[in-house]
Amino acid sequence: MTAIFDSTLRDGEIGIELPESFDAGLYFIGTIRTPFLRREDCPRSGADSDALCTIEVFERFADALLGIEAHAEFDVLYWLHRSLRTVMVQRPHHRPDPRGAFALRSPVRPNPIGLSACPLVKVEGRFLTVRGLDCLDGTPLIDLKPHQADAGRRAGP
Amino acid sequence: MTAIFDSTLRDGEIGIELPESFDAGLYFIGTIRTPFLRREDCPRSGADSDALCTIEVFERFADALLGIEAHAEFDVLYWLHRSLRTVMVQRPHHRPDPRGAFALRSPVRPNPIGLSACPLVKVEGRFLTVRGLDCLDGTPLIDLKPHQADAGRRAGP
Repeated sequence: MTAIFDSTLRDGEIGIELPESFDAGLYFIGTIRTPFLRREDCPRSGADSDALCTIEVFERFADALLGIEAHAEFDVLYWLHRSLRTVMVQRPHHRPDPRGAFALRSPVRPNPIGLSACPLVKVEGRFLTVRGLDCLDGTPLIDLKPHQADAGRRAGP
Repeated sequence: MTAIFDSTLRDGEIGIELPESFDAGLYFIGTIRTPFLRREDCPRSGADSDALCTIEVFERFADALLGIEAHAEFDVLYWLHRSLRTVMVQRPHHRPDPRGAFALRSPVRPNPIGLSACPLVKVEGRFLTVRGLDCLDGTPLIDLKPHQADAGRRAGP
């Protein structure tokens, strides 16, 4: 997979060499349709967007949708297929100081998995309408889970 | 990868044949240490647990931790390496009716990614102490993101 973004490191950024092989494999289980055709059109996070987006779940995996209407909100996981995976310390344009990939929700990370909590608006067969996504049109879907609003809350530090 | 759980379908469950090849690859970026040594020891969700758990981030990816102390809670993504991936409709013991994998937070799903929102308790170099995890000891880590408590909230349906 070729990263299409400029791979030149900015001042203060740190890149690494990735391992020679993968440890596990993902299946793309669907495709996400959004109004965002270019990287610069994407909102910084799904929470900043009211845009209606459509999730198509592929036929092979459609049985797994049984009963989803019982939940109002989903954790949508997707594969940021055009993201660089090598930049561990980054200097996003909106921040003055360098930050690690794990201290950011940047798409640039060793495993470029995107995650948004999305209100479910409509279900029509294998097609779901949701709000709250921030990704490019055509982004591959990798998982859908009922959102656990209070996950971790009971166990504050 | 061999699934160790009984692959016999219960009455009302639906299994599928998976695609012949993967669409993307993951790197394991660390290891999660929990007090849960057997599947039956795991809490149903991390929100049900006060247990302190340790996340070791591998040396290669440690630079990506820069600045994580700025956040109180993280979305921890992990690979449920012992889960079956073929059962699309499931009958969990605690539910009377069959449900799709995408309507459940069950570990059994086409891409067995676990997700918990975890309060960060302590950082010591590459080792993080957190609460709110539900996974087996030795589970591979695949991502860490600052938790976005209100993701999707602004955009209710």
